[in-house]
Amino acid sequence: MSDDTTPAAKSRRNPSHVSHLTHLECTACKKHHDADRVMRLCPDCGKVLFARYDLEKARLTMTKEALAQRPRGMWRWHEIMPVRGPHHIVSLGEGDTPLLPTPKLGENIYIKEEGLCPTGSFKARGISAAVSRAHELGVEVVAIPSAGNAASALAAYGARAGMRVHAFMPVDTPLLNQKECVVYGAHVTLVRGLISDCAGIVRKRADAEGWFDVSTLKEPYRAEGKKTMGLELAEQFGWSLPDVVVYPTGGGTGIVGMWKAWDELEAMGLIGSKRPRMISVQAEGCAPIVRAFEQGLDHAPPVQNATTRAAGLRVPGAVADYLILKAIRDSGGTAVAVSEDEISAALREIAAREGIFAAPEGAATWAAAKKLYARGVLRWSETVVLFNTGTGLKYPDFVDVDLDVVDP
Amino acid sequence: MSDDTTPAAKSRRNPSHVSHLTHLECTACKKHHDADRVMRLCPDCGKVLFARYDLEKARLTMTKEALAQRPRGMWRWHEIMPVRGPHHIVSLGEGDTPLLPTPKLGENIYIKEEGLCPTGSFKARGISAAVSRAHELGVEVVAIPSAGNAASALAAYGARAGMRVHAFMPVDTPLLNQKECVVYGAHVTLVRGLISDCAGIVRKRADAEGWFDVSTLKEPYRAEGKKTMGLELAEQFGWSLPDVVVYPTGGGTGIVGMWKAWDELEAMGLIGSKRPRMISVQAEGCAPIVRAFEQGLDHAPPVQNATTRAAGLRVPGAVADYLILKAIRDSGGTAVAVSEDEISAALREIAAREGIFAAPEGAATWAAAKKLYARGVLRWSETVVLFNTGTGLKYPDFVDVDLDVVDP
Ligand SMILES: Cc1ncc(COP(=O)(O)O)c(C=O)c1O
Ligand SMILES: Cc1ncc(COP(=O)(O)O)c(C=O)c1O
Ligand SMILES: [Zn+2]
Ligand SMILES: [Zn+2]
Repeated sequence: MSDDTTPAAKSRRNPSHVSHLTHLECTACKKHHDADRVMRLCPDCGKVLFARYDLEKARLTMTKEALAQRPRGMWRWHEIMPVRGPHHIVSLGEGDTPLLPTPKLGENIYIKEEGLCPTGSFKARGISAAVSRAHELGVEVVAIPSAGNAASALAAYGARAGMRVHAFMPVDTPLLNQKECVVYGAHVTLVRGLISDCAGIVRKRADAEGWFDVSTLKEPYRAEGKKTMGLELAEQFGWSLPDVVVYPTGGGTGIVGMWKAWDELEAMGLIGSKRPRMISVQAEGCAPIVRAFEQGLDHAPPVQNATTRAAGLRVPGAVADYLILKAIRDSGGTAVAVSEDEISAALREIAAREGIFAAPEGAATWAAAKKLYARGVLRWSETVVLFNTGTGLKYPDFVDVDLDVVDP
Repeated sequence: MSDDTTPAAKSRRNPSHVSHLTHLECTACKKHHDADRVMRLCPDCGKVLFARYDLEKARLTMTKEALAQRPRGMWRWHEIMPVRGPHHIVSLGEGDTPLLPTPKLGENIYIKEEGLCPTGSFKARGISAAVSRAHELGVEVVAIPSAGNAASALAAYGARAGMRVHAFMPVDTPLLNQKECVVYGAHVTLVRGLISDCAGIVRKRADAEGWFDVSTLKEPYRAEGKKTMGLELAEQFGWSLPDVVVYPTGGGTGIVGMWKAWDELEAMGLIGSKRPRMISVQAEGCAPIVRAFEQGLDHAPPVQNATTRAAGLRVPGAVADYLILKAIRDSGGTAVAVSEDEISAALREIAAREGIFAAPEGAATWAAAKKLYARGVLRWSETVVLFNTGTGLKYPDFVDVDLDVVDP
């Protein structure tokens, strides 16, 4: 084989890769900050920073035709992604997940199947972006508090990047998440508490130990990875958007990221002003966003004694609560809590009818949608996308087996 | 959203879908058979049937440019796939898996990452093809003897197609495979024995119960799904092929399917005559192909007391043994057995160095490659593709955890 045609040679060259990242902007005080330094929250007000791009330049090369012809994966949106040098991209093949019609749930319902991401969850997108950019900016040690899947992803991408990874997870995190972290060689500590307690430990130790803390939305780039779900959705629907998006919400990076993605696409003339109604789904045992939404609050007071078997939804308080609540309200959407039994039943229905073994967090979206159809908030004529954010393979406890055994 | 742009509307129409399937041909006696009837092995000699296509017609529309622009997934090769009506395709988004460079294993080594297939293994490809075609031919009940992953895939695709699924698996099949079958609503029976014992039961009961038996290579279409791995590899290497392919071999559908794929691509003028050396990898506890290869046999006598923790490799005898052995020999390849410890060590190495949590079957390819580099059979300058046929998430027993627990 000649050197020219190996994928390695191609990725070494990739002359067309360019990022039009210009600066970071605070989502609260709107101040601008340097994007080429390691940054976390806004140094002035402590709120979430967004990456900003020169969209006028980006639109010149991001035509529908060009995008369709690029090799698959979330990095084909490179003009509006934060990595400047393609050799810094740390990729395991994330992005371009299938949008599956699920006619036996409803004629106009689709599942965005994030269970097919590397490490089995959509966390791969955010972590690929954050690790790649951190790598580009010289970071060598990363730390994360996690409900499980984000730590798994960080362990994998960190290993691939040659970084040292410190993961802090609740002691009752699904066992498979713990095993993933171990097999990838991460340093794992289990904490008798919730993800918020893990976050406290990371916050305290990060500076002293020289760790870069990649907590959700406490650094600007995980959201950039998650936004690619919104970019793909627009393309998969023929550069329009569905009527409704139903999304399981923990830290909320997905909602925030997709909302940002659509603004960028509109600014580049790739979609119009129509937005889906955003439906945020949480578990009854941990529903801070639902409560804040119902009470008309702009911020969500942290939940006490958070509990749910849908581990990714066990996030008592979110840094980006104000951004999540604003996206839901601006979109004309709503927020819904579902019970543990509703989640389990929905998981079984999706599997038996459509052949998709969803994570409980993903199954929660179908549980919520059923309620909203019943209440008339959703209409069967509307195009609805349910996000299955992970593979059910990571949650074996949701399925009991008691099978017949025979002799040959 | 207008009806024209929903994915559902598009897939309902898809006017460009066409299959140039012409007939079935026996791989042994070469007799032709009708492709539009439900068929299994050759009615004349009992050997494996291959699907044949009008490649002169297919080449007219299967240009490199056209293929690059089609929506992703294995069904974009429809001209040389067996389903005539696109509405019969039962898909969960299978195919177009990443080809990941793994420079920390070796500068010229790549992993074809089949762990990102639906149901977490490459079995999704074969089963999507078999279930789709069976669906088109009117089959309503399917049965399978399986080492685990094929049953999981059949349970998922069968559920999606609305078929009844009967799965027979060894009693010590990985628990996650059992759980998958259950969640998808399949009828599962565990057998105190090996996959060959399961096959015996299916063979005995299929006719009486009206089941269609989709055992590996005992029907012509699973191999057509598997061949898409070979089609993708050619495209991913810029319409060339790597020097070496290392493949974990149970029933051998992958090797047989890819070998067929490349002949078809060459006949259509899409690649030249160069072929990779095919390296078949098995576990020491069950290595019928390795023994037959070493002894110069054309068929592989079944192994007694087959045992390995790499469940997919625990296949004591393969119907297509003669096709596997011929592909290895024609390619100038070889067959290698690896030990349980070598598999475990390789699994850990791939994860820690490259961020890929491979199935033990996939890890076995790296264990084998290391031996062959040491022996000089593989050279570091050659382009080598290791097939990771499944996700490690399905094999949690390969990773032990013993983690520090702290108070917040
Ligand atoms: C499978 C799964 N779904 C949903 C979530 C919540 O995602 P987000 O933090 O983006 O709201 C998580 C977070 O851990 C998760 O693992
Ligand atoms: C993960 C995995 N790898 C490899 C194999 C062997 O594949 P084949 O039957 O195509 O040789 C199997 C079969 O069950 C499997 O599940
Ligand atoms: Zn600020
Ligand atoms: Zn014959």
